[in-house]
Amino acid sequence: MNYRLIFNLLGKVLVLEAALLVLPLITSFVYLEWNGAMAFGITIAGALGLGLLLAFLVKPKKNQHMYAKEGLIITALAWIVVSLVGSLPFVISREIPSFIDALFEIVSGLTTTGASVLGDVEALSHGMLFWRSFSHWIGGMGVLVFVLAFVNRNDRSMHILRAEMPGPTVDKLVPKAKNTAFILYGIYVVLTLVLAIMLVCGDMNFFDAILHAFGTAGTGGFGIRNTSLTDYSSYSQWVIAIFMLLFGVNFNLYFLLILRKFSGIFRNTEFWVYICVVVASVTIITLNIYSLYGSVATALKHSTFQVASLMSTTGYSTADFDQWPALSKGILFTLMFIGGCAGSTSGGFKLTRVVILFKKIGNDLKRALHPRTATVVKINGEKVSEETTSGVTSYLAIYVLIFLAVFIILSLDPHVPQQGALETNISAAASAFNNIGPGFNAVGPTCNFGFYSPVSKIVLIFAMLLGRLEIYPILVALSPTTWFKR
Amino acid sequence: MNYRLIFNLLGKVLVLEAALLVLPLITSFVYLEWNGAMAFGITIAGALGLGLLLAFLVKPKKNQHMYAKEGLIITALAWIVVSLVGSLPFVISREIPSFIDALFEIVSGLTTTGASVLGDVEALSHGMLFWRSFSHWIGGMGVLVFVLAFVNRNDRSMHILRAEMPGPTVDKLVPKAKNTAFILYGIYVVLTLVLAIMLVCGDMNFFDAILHAFGTAGTGGFGIRNTSLTDYSSYSQWVIAIFMLLFGVNFNLYFLLILRKFSGIFRNTEFWVYICVVVASVTIITLNIYSLYGSVATALKHSTFQVASLMSTTGYSTADFDQWPALSKGILFTLMFIGGCAGSTSGGFKLTRVVILFKKIGNDLKRALHPRTATVVKINGEKVSEETTSGVTSYLAIYVLIFLAVFIILSLDPHVPQQGALETNISAAASAFNNIGPGFNAVGPTCNFGFYSPVSKIVLIFAMLLGRLEIYPILVALSPTTWFKR
Repeated sequence: MNYRLIFNLLGKVLVLEAALLVLPLITSFVYLEWNGAMAFGITIAGALGLGLLLAFLVKPKKNQHMYAKEGLIITALAWIVVSLVGSLPFVISREIPSFIDALFEIVSGLTTTGASVLGDVEALSHGMLFWRSFSHWIGGMGVLVFVLAFVNRNDRSMHILRAEMPGPTVDKLVPKAKNTAFILYGIYVVLTLVLAIMLVCGDMNFFDAILHAFGTAGTGGFGIRNTSLTDYSSYSQWVIAIFMLLFGVNFNLYFLLILRKFSGIFRNTEFWVYICVVVASVTIITLNIYSLYGSVATALKHSTFQVASLMSTTGYSTADFDQWPALSKGILFTLMFIGGCAGSTSGGFKLTRVVILFKKIGNDLKRALHPRTATVVKINGEKVSEETTSGVTSYLAIYVLIFLAVFIILSLDPHVPQQGALETNISAAASAFNNIGPGFNAVGPTCNFGFYSPVSKIVLIFAMLLGRLEIYPILVALSPTTWFKR
Repeated sequence: MNYRLIFNLLGKVLVLEAALLVLPLITSFVYLEWNGAMAFGITIAGALGLGLLLAFLVKPKKNQHMYAKEGLIITALAWIVVSLVGSLPFVISREIPSFIDALFEIVSGLTTTGASVLGDVEALSHGMLFWRSFSHWIGGMGVLVFVLAFVNRNDRSMHILRAEMPGPTVDKLVPKAKNTAFILYGIYVVLTLVLAIMLVCGDMNFFDAILHAFGTAGTGGFGIRNTSLTDYSSYSQWVIAIFMLLFGVNFNLYFLLILRKFSGIFRNTEFWVYICVVVASVTIITLNIYSLYGSVATALKHSTFQVASLMSTTGYSTADFDQWPALSKGILFTLMFIGGCAGSTSGGFKLTRVVILFKKIGNDLKRALHPRTATVVKINGEKVSEETTSGVTSYLAIYVLIFLAVFIILSLDPHVPQQGALETNISAAASAFNNIGPGFNAVGPTCNFGFYSPVSKIVLIFAMLLGRLEIYPILVALSPTTWFKR
């Protein structure tokens, strides 16, 4: 194991986090919140000190390679370190006095989950609200890619890009990983800015618009009001609904759009499946909830918003969908698992994987009928390698097992309200693991995760990290064989 | 497609079913139920007539091979035909006047599910009760294996044995498939007889003992009282609990036991995992429900019974486990998906597959750490082929997708009670697809499936058949490419 490289990079990540924390610090100053400013100040000082120490004292040897194993472990460790440091402002300021709660909140932010332990979000100071939502934006794209591409100025970062980016395939858009990261960040920043400007044009003030832009871009979903987005105008709700859908699309497509390579977009199977699933779900749910709202426009708005929110795994809500009929809840529950497109900021299993699974099953059936026929899985008009399809089914296996493990450990918790506990725990596990935010019943859109015991919260924290980093980095980092030679 | 062979075999299956229906006919006579006797008589006459017609008029050409494709299709068609005919006595006698309900009931019986649409089981005549429970026993081992091994007297039945027997691997115990089937049936009959005798020695009369022996041996679970097994003595409950566990074990192990090849049993990974899962689940649930019953003995009895019942996918109940704490419900819910051992009469995903999945995931992780290491999955001390592990992950993929599809279609049903509808529909889909019987909430152990709409019932019927035949035969039979050349 290349410990020097790992510690050096962790140091750089800490310095970056200290730099990012300056923004909430400024926010605290602007709103004259001295308590919050002090908390951010202390955290920045600590992170900067430790970070510089590691970055300058532990120099990796020259010309050392980074292997897949190191890539996975660095990613896992970086996320854990950033989360631990990121929780400090909440604890130091006593705005979330419990360390576990604060860690839950910041991991929920960084992993773009958006599940909160707070019953009264509006009690937080502006600085803390900013940091919460900003963490979505940071986590959406990943911290390590940033460090490697812009700070380290070398090109050994493809492993990290793969480990940190959601989805089974990360193509280099351009020959160098660094440039790929640069393009992806560019698209991300521009889309966020456009959204923020559109929101300011509506009924949101500057602060609300920025924070909701962060939450939408990272497909996070932390609300800054106790009612999430219920009280904002239809204009704001529609804008956010559309941008949630946009941030659920593979970012490569935007790059193709910039290059005017429209044929690449038209050939993209996942994109069309995404559109079909969204349109079908919205149509069915609109018809299903029409009688609740009495107007097609309102029903359409709520259904579009909720489908966009759960499919992109953002988790904002405009209505208490826990009260919707079983059909709508069933569709939303299923969408929670599917998630958005690979290469977007969304969580979940990812649509590409679902498409590959369906095609693989079709092929398996054909093979059962005609054993001698050669069959290949095709996606985007190109052949998918046997290795990739096998990787997807393996991923499903581990996905299901981890989901069930989280669900069972949550079931151990005596604090869960007995009424509908099964539904609560299933949807809580699904929501955390798929990085969504709200679930159903006691963790529904009008509720929060505060009632869970510390042990359950730690399990949910790991579930969120496992979901965000797509399992393998965390499992490798937790595996004893990684650290001890046999 | 070899249509002559298919029709010829279907004819023989019908004749066999007519022969099997003689037993409930006799029961009706014994209890002087003339209405029931007439219903069975008419069904027998019809099945016999049509069966003989097909078996004698449509002769397959000599020396024709049966390919995997025909094996799958014959299996699917045979089960559909047997179900359609088997529903007739209920309809003709007007004891279950609705055809869909009658079909649901008999498919639930044949697939060894044990989910009922009847609110008042005790209203059925003895003949019908016999036929319901007898169908578990028939379905547990499969009808086609019987026809091929004993009627056809040839050895082209391995494909059928594979298609009809639960689990990923069916080994020939002895060189000829026919003899393998003979041994399996022998074990099945002996175990059933032992169970029936033990039950008669308790508080059950002859009729109750036979029917519960059928239901336990097939891991079916149709009760003959509205309270399932709640009102029987602790002795009967313990006997059935233990036999449910015994029928959840791979039958090959009993064969090894007869041959005194104990090392084969000790080496069997699945068997040990089965014991560990059962012991762990029983222990946790006993501790969890102790306070409800106030006595360790009672808590232990109920937990053992329910774990045995849901793990073997039988579905009998001695207590309303829907009222148990979230932890116990969570464990039971998970056991519902796992199911018993391959090569037993139980349903579910099968423990072997779970073991293979876990080992495969471990290997994938090792490979992520050390890309150049050669890794193999081992089970029972032997290497599992890449083909088998890939088949297991494919099976999981299709399993999850079908489960979600069934769940969503059930969600469409406006007849489902809104309170806890998500839990109801999830557990109903799980229960039918895994061939268990009861689920949670509105389909809990004290409830029934009667409230579902006809469309939902048809979907559940297909789910039960898909679960019993392990998906592929039914999908192949439903696939248009099977029947129409492109």
